[in-house]
Amino acid sequence: MENPHDSFHFLFNPRSVAVIGASPNPLKMGHQCLLSLQGSAFPGPIYPIHPQEKEILGMPAYPDLQQVPGEVDLAILTVPASGAISALQACQKKGVRGAVIITAGFREIDNSEGEKLQEKMAAVANQGGIKIIGPNTFGMVNIHANLNASFTPIFSSLKPGPISVISQSGGVSHLIAYQALDDGVGLGKVIGLGNRCNVDFADLLPFFARDDQTKCLILFIEGLEDPKPLIAAIKNLAPQKPVVAMKAGRYSASLKAARSHTGSMAGRYEIYEASLRQAGAIVMPEPDELLDTAKILSMLPPPAGRNVAVMSFQAGPGILLTDAVVRHGLRMATFSGSTQEKLNYLLPPLTIRTNPVDMAFARDERAFEETVHLILHDQNVDALVIFLLHHPFMTPRRIKDPVLRQKQRSGKPILLCANSPRGLIAEEIQELETNGIPVYSLPDQTIKALKGLIQYGEAVKREKR
Amino acid sequence: MENPHDSFHFLFNPRSVAVIGASPNPLKMGHQCLLSLQGSAFPGPIYPIHPQEKEILGMPAYPDLQQVPGEVDLAILTVPASGAISALQACQKKGVRGAVIITAGFREIDNSEGEKLQEKMAAVANQGGIKIIGPNTFGMVNIHANLNASFTPIFSSLKPGPISVISQSGGVSHLIAYQALDDGVGLGKVIGLGNRCNVDFADLLPFFARDDQTKCLILFIEGLEDPKPLIAAIKNLAPQKPVVAMKAGRYSASLKAARSHTGSMAGRYEIYEASLRQAGAIVMPEPDELLDTAKILSMLPPPAGRNVAVMSFQAGPGILLTDAVVRHGLRMATFSGSTQEKLNYLLPPLTIRTNPVDMAFARDERAFEETVHLILHDQNVDALVIFLLHHPFMTPRRIKDPVLRQKQRSGKPILLCANSPRGLIAEEIQELETNGIPVYSLPDQTIKALKGLIQYGEAVKREKR
Repeated sequence: MENPHDSFHFLFNPRSVAVIGASPNPLKMGHQCLLSLQGSAFPGPIYPIHPQEKEILGMPAYPDLQQVPGEVDLAILTVPASGAISALQACQKKGVRGAVIITAGFREIDNSEGEKLQEKMAAVANQGGIKIIGPNTFGMVNIHANLNASFTPIFSSLKPGPISVISQSGGVSHLIAYQALDDGVGLGKVIGLGNRCNVDFADLLPFFARDDQTKCLILFIEGLEDPKPLIAAIKNLAPQKPVVAMKAGRYSASLKAARSHTGSMAGRYEIYEASLRQAGAIVMPEPDELLDTAKILSMLPPPAGRNVAVMSFQAGPGILLTDAVVRHGLRMATFSGSTQEKLNYLLPPLTIRTNPVDMAFARDERAFEETVHLILHDQNVDALVIFLLHHPFMTPRRIKDPVLRQKQRSGKPILLCANSPRGLIAEEIQELETNGIPVYSLPDQTIKALKGLIQYGEAVKREKR
Repeated sequence: MENPHDSFHFLFNPRSVAVIGASPNPLKMGHQCLLSLQGSAFPGPIYPIHPQEKEILGMPAYPDLQQVPGEVDLAILTVPASGAISALQACQKKGVRGAVIITAGFREIDNSEGEKLQEKMAAVANQGGIKIIGPNTFGMVNIHANLNASFTPIFSSLKPGPISVISQSGGVSHLIAYQALDDGVGLGKVIGLGNRCNVDFADLLPFFARDDQTKCLILFIEGLEDPKPLIAAIKNLAPQKPVVAMKAGRYSASLKAARSHTGSMAGRYEIYEASLRQAGAIVMPEPDELLDTAKILSMLPPPAGRNVAVMSFQAGPGILLTDAVVRHGLRMATFSGSTQEKLNYLLPPLTIRTNPVDMAFARDERAFEETVHLILHDQNVDALVIFLLHHPFMTPRRIKDPVLRQKQRSGKPILLCANSPRGLIAEEIQELETNGIPVYSLPDQTIKALKGLIQYGEAVKREKR
């Protein structure tokens, strides 16, 4: 039997790609796929397959796969459903290792015809050792390999990073990837499973265990015939690499829709949620929280406990952060007597020197750094959140050096909640994140991400017991 | 007695502004305030007041207010607390109508000295008929009057619009204004109340009832000595102009901080929330939801009920929207028999033709428009949410004409949830919003805003009974 690691390797790291269904018409998926591949600067040869055209988008085209001069590792299929099986048979003949089948009209159709076609597809693929992403998918990307094998060219602009995504919904994959583009968060692989012909969540998780480029995995689940293999795979993976998961279809109205879409039983939300959590996944209720949480999990080890300290230069946002800490079940740390005594001496008696600490009237840098130092070295504190509001007087650059110095002297997580009009501080955020300080924009968002990190630590501890 | 309408008029629409504490040093608030005024293209004269300088930022400076040649309607004070009273006395002498007192160090200080100073300030101001914003504030802006009377120059880039903000927290005012800058949402007046020397929430609400430039009001409350006048003022205003409110300090940890910051009893959250709701305000738990909700309230009349229809071109996001509808206590509409019959005929049997309608396989424009038409004219439907994912094949422009045509034929709200990398569709969003289609980015965000609109309708109905 072929080593599954190897099969997935060529699927995600092909040396050459063919697009079966390539088209000179920009309104065709096969055209957009070529734009995606070109845009991502894929280093190997790209072979458009088209019955008549000699050249598409400046690339020599071939009438069929057999005419392609070299080997083809990955094929992207955008042909109609009726032609998909014969295209896949051609792939098998050519020795293709992986296929992205964008074509829709299989099991998701509410009749037995689609189901049968997909079974045949799986049989051909398995016989040829071809791993299929899809059918009925937007495709997939592997940013580390400069591979955008999707019908969405803008994914080529994604920054490489340690977070990978496996999603049953193409739409939600896009939501997450667009957020990553906006927030400058790096991604590794983004995979739209589609109808999961012969590659499902549970098949991919062992691959991600070995994938050094992925430090944290995001799963978006609509519904599975049998969730047990996935739950078992998460149980294996999670202690080593954090898994952030979301299950759609929480209520009967949405469950019905999820069932229609996936062509499979969606399953009760509560059972999924409990099983995912028990297996060690961090379950989030909203798609934007998946990426926010994965970011911190890919950057920092979890803190020892739930006690949070807050520092801000404006009282209002400090209060919002405090509200969020309590609402999300974390605790506002009570400083030790010795810390409190030193803070009372260090900071003027104008406002709040207890947690949340209001730094409004203590803007000199020595006092700021000493406050960070005292808080981080208090045994009652597990993590520190600093709020910073954009102003000409105050940008992240202003606090960067003291925060990084103190971070080096303490293993505790420091998060920055830096609120600013978009884009003004992108470089400063980048620099802080490169140095292990995750930056978020809103108080609630910051605390939810921190909670995810803490929950992961608790899940790992539970596992070890 | 002076007409309060008139006093507030010159505060927000001054013909001239003096900055007492103006400085050539960019690190001084008095310098930033001059930049703000210049940046907002304030049409009247700006008078920097400085003991020695003859000119600051290209503007002639004056040693004191009495030397200013013309009348001064508004004075911005950035002098130290010790000099604030004499500066205000100079304002009184000069006939100044309104003052923004940025200077801190009054009642928010935990000693009787600050309290006394502030009482004296109020006495001087009341004697002279001067309305004070502050002390201890970032200032205020009136975008419609090209007036940025704050220490934050970037507020000059705000777009004029029908939403005004009154906030007890300067930090949260910034959060909201920065979000407005990012989202291209127009604002009218943004007011940081600070210590509320002689202008409080309840004083301003009657002014906003008469302010034609404001259609919707946002309030951010930390805590008041006596909330009753505010509650009464909301009860008067809300049936005519929607009020969106947030109270910080939900839990004991944050309540303590709020009390320290405002120097006043913060009051139990539950009591505030119940009173605000009862008075007809829409209460939101997060600052970003304030602006999202105010946007839809300033654009659309509320629908008749809670029955929501969802259309999407991708099943996954349709399911997320459905989850959000149920989670936020709205209902997924069940189409009438006649609508359902027509949809079954109109749309291919590939996926979901019930609510949420999945349009994935019905991309021709006639079918799309007819679906919108059928749904809007179904008596079981009160509002329609359309989800659109950015793709070269599909941007808001593609659906704009049919949606606007159908909107004209129906009074029901249509919301667009358009997910896209930021900036790519800003103009299209602008065009839709100008035509009464509010656009949001995330499913949960969209439904929360719709819920606010529905709640407002319910509050107005309750009031009328």
